Amino acid sequence: MAIMRGIITLTTDFGQSSYFVAVMKGVILNLNPEARIIDITHDASPHDILEAAFILKCAYRYFPRRSVHLVVVDPEVGSERSPIMVATDNYYFIGPDNGVFSYIYEEEIVNSVYKITEEHYFLNPVSRTFQGRDLFAPVAAYFTKGVPIHYFGEPAEEYKRLPLPQPKMISENVLQGRVVYIDRFGNLIADIRKEHFDDIQFKAPDKKANIRIAGQNLGGLLEYYAQGPDKKPAALIGSSGHLEIFAKQGKAQEILGAGKGEAVEVVIE
Amino acid sequence: MAIMRGIITLTTDFGQSSYFVAVMKGVILNLNPEARIIDITHDASPHDILEAAFILKCAYRYFPRRSVHLVVVDPEVGSERSPIMVATDNYYFIGPDNGVFSYIYEEEIVNSVYKITEEHYFLNPVSRTFQGRDLFAPVAAYFTKGVPIHYFGEPAEEYKRLPLPQPKMISENVLQGRVVYIDRFGNLIADIRKEHFDDIQFKAPDKKANIRIAGQNLGGLLEYYAQGPDKKPAALIGSSGHLEIFAKQGKAQEILGAGKGEAVEVVIE
Amino acid sequence: MAIMRGIITLTTDFGQSSYFVAVMKGVILNLNPEARIIDITHDASPHDILEAAFILKCAYRYFPRRSVHLVVVDPEVGSERSPIMVATDNYYFIGPDNGVFSYIYEEEIVNSVYKITEEHYFLNPVSRTFQGRDLFAPVAAYFTKGVPIHYFGEPAEEYKRLPLPQPKMISENVLQGRVVYIDRFGNLIADIRKEHFDDIQFKAPDKKANIRIAGQNLGGLLEYYAQGPDKKPAALIGSSGHLEIFAKQGKAQEILGAGKGEAVEVVIE
Repeated sequence: MAIMRGIITLTTDFGQSSYFVAVMKGVILNLNPEARIIDITHDASPHDILEAAFILKCAYRYFPRRSVHLVVVDPEVGSERSPIMVATDNYYFIGPDNGVFSYIYEEEIVNSVYKITEEHYFLNPVSRTFQGRDLFAPVAAYFTKGVPIHYFGEPAEEYKRLPLPQPKMISENVLQGRVVYIDRFGNLIADIRKEHFDDIQFKAPDKKANIRIAGQNLGGLLEYYAQGPDKKPAALIGSSGHLEIFAKQGKAQEILGAGKGEAVEVVIE
Repeated sequence: MAIMRGIITLTTDFGQSSYFVAVMKGVILNLNPEARIIDITHDASPHDILEAAFILKCAYRYFPRRSVHLVVVDPEVGSERSPIMVATDNYYFIGPDNGVFSYIYEEEIVNSVYKITEEHYFLNPVSRTFQGRDLFAPVAAYFTKGVPIHYFGEPAEEYKRLPLPQPKMISENVLQGRVVYIDRFGNLIADIRKEHFDDIQFKAPDKKANIRIAGQNLGGLLEYYAQGPDKKPAALIGSSGHLEIFAKQGKAQEILGAGKGEAVEVVIE
Repeated sequence: MAIMRGIITLTTDFGQSSYFVAVMKGVILNLNPEARIIDITHDASPHDILEAAFILKCAYRYFPRRSVHLVVVDPEVGSERSPIMVATDNYYFIGPDNGVFSYIYEEEIVNSVYKITEEHYFLNPVSRTFQGRDLFAPVAAYFTKGVPIHYFGEPAEEYKRLPLPQPKMISENVLQGRVVYIDRFGNLIADIRKEHFDDIQFKAPDKKANIRIAGQNLGGLLEYYAQGPDKKPAALIGSSGHLEIFAKQGKAQEILGAGKGEAVEVVIE
């Protein structure tokens, strides 16, 4: 079954001022002129595998079924870590086996994971510094042309899962999480999700959840940004389903002086 | 009349390091795989409706007739402001009714404006923080597939026009405007247009127009950048038809220490 | 022979926050709706012709044969410098005759160079400040629609070649080059290439090449980034075939306080 006009999304930390991304696109189009290439981002923080994993988690499911998500955030490029392909019920993922697909393993039904070893599908010679060009791009191109997944290598017996940030109860009435992502508006996105609030409400329907970060009490959840006070931090469940600290007409990141890893607490009272 | 292979342009303040733009593209392609998506910019200054309006004004007319221009600079997302669609003689515009189409209302013949209310065309549920994904992207996708404009809601009885910056005569021989946009080269673009100079020349053909900004006299208009003195501010009518202050081999913005809103004067003498 | 579904790549210094690139795309699509437009970069350092030339050199060959590479880094826009088209055995290049194709003249077999003079193919009127929109974009569009190259103007008798950075032997056993490009990871790319090392090894197979930059000795070449010591500079031959100074888990640019033009030495001992 050919996937001729397949969509290939790209998530990298290559930036946009260099030529690396363009070279990958050139290689793909050379092998499959019908491929449709969509950038997720190329500005993932350099070498930050967990951040790229989080970006992918927030984006992948909005693409058409059977899209191929190619991720190249790969500080260990050229070393012994394997390149892999992951097939789930809904999507395909191609990238290094460094944990960048850890959220995918949680959220999708994984049907198979292959180590990519068949050099026949690589550019020759394969550099040890830019496998995005020499290995991942051509493999994605051939795959969207209909080459079956098992042609590219052998099933992987194991594959890397990074421990994902998870909030935990640090006392009877305090759930503590961490900021895991900061967006362009300076909004701080935490690992605490809507389900955690649903759970709190289910267990204690008569209590209220108050949000605390960097020594400040933000009160309860709002519904949309314009409800917040001007230039002061407030909280809501953002579009990704995660707790989000924002500041109307300002940047919560700057106002709170908070970065990734900052503790965020939900106090039930 | 279907517009199957329609062009959808995107203008947002979402930045390129986050996944928001990609998610909108995924949603569009999921509903209309034939849509052609072109980025105008995603780096509009956050929440700056007037700047986005100006960018749109400078870009929209160069796209093929019947292109759909989708603009999501929307600080009031989720509040009572309406999402709207605007049909002019030449183009379609989709975005929040917050004034981001103010220049369009001036420059195009507006045939109809609709409030977008038909939830049938939205993702379900619609978040109150990311309507680019849940409302605007799917509406643009369905529209380019041929769903008629009146299917999406009711004609809008009114819609928001922001007061647009306009230069004015502050004395008998001084026209004063403002810097409304700064480009990547540090060029300062004013609300004074070529027509104002034509008008001056028509009324006073024997007089000269001298440009003044930040206490400096720049002399008359040049024709192209390379004519300017090195690292000193000079003026010309730029490609947008607006008065532009630039500095050859430098950035006028930095050299003059000037930002958006800075006064620019044309002195007729 | 029409090149209907031609690929047009874009390399500019227009940045991505302004509307300039989008306007060029709109113009292209208006004239050739089948054109496939791929961004190489729009973040070339403003007015840096040599940097754009280097970026183009690293990217062009990975695109399908017959792709059209359009480059608009053009500080002299509107002056007497000519717009040109270059046909090589494999690709086409369109841009200002300011030396931006200097590497192409070295690396490709050039079949013809034309001055673009036929105003019939331009937008009317042509501004003297944005020929990317008014001249280069429409010419690229018409060309990919099948208009023969000689329709656009006359053969150029001469065209500009910039002196390209080249390493030289500064003593019997020291090859000195310069940093010519810095990528997003802070890697310093020099004008010293793999061929120089091959040559050294051929002439002196029993000697070793040690790399020196900013007063530091980095030792010999590594093979991939993960082999380097943490946060310390090291060297390898990068994917572009050039000597590259990097720092694992850091930025060589910052650690060494080095910029473009910094001397890099290969000491044979």
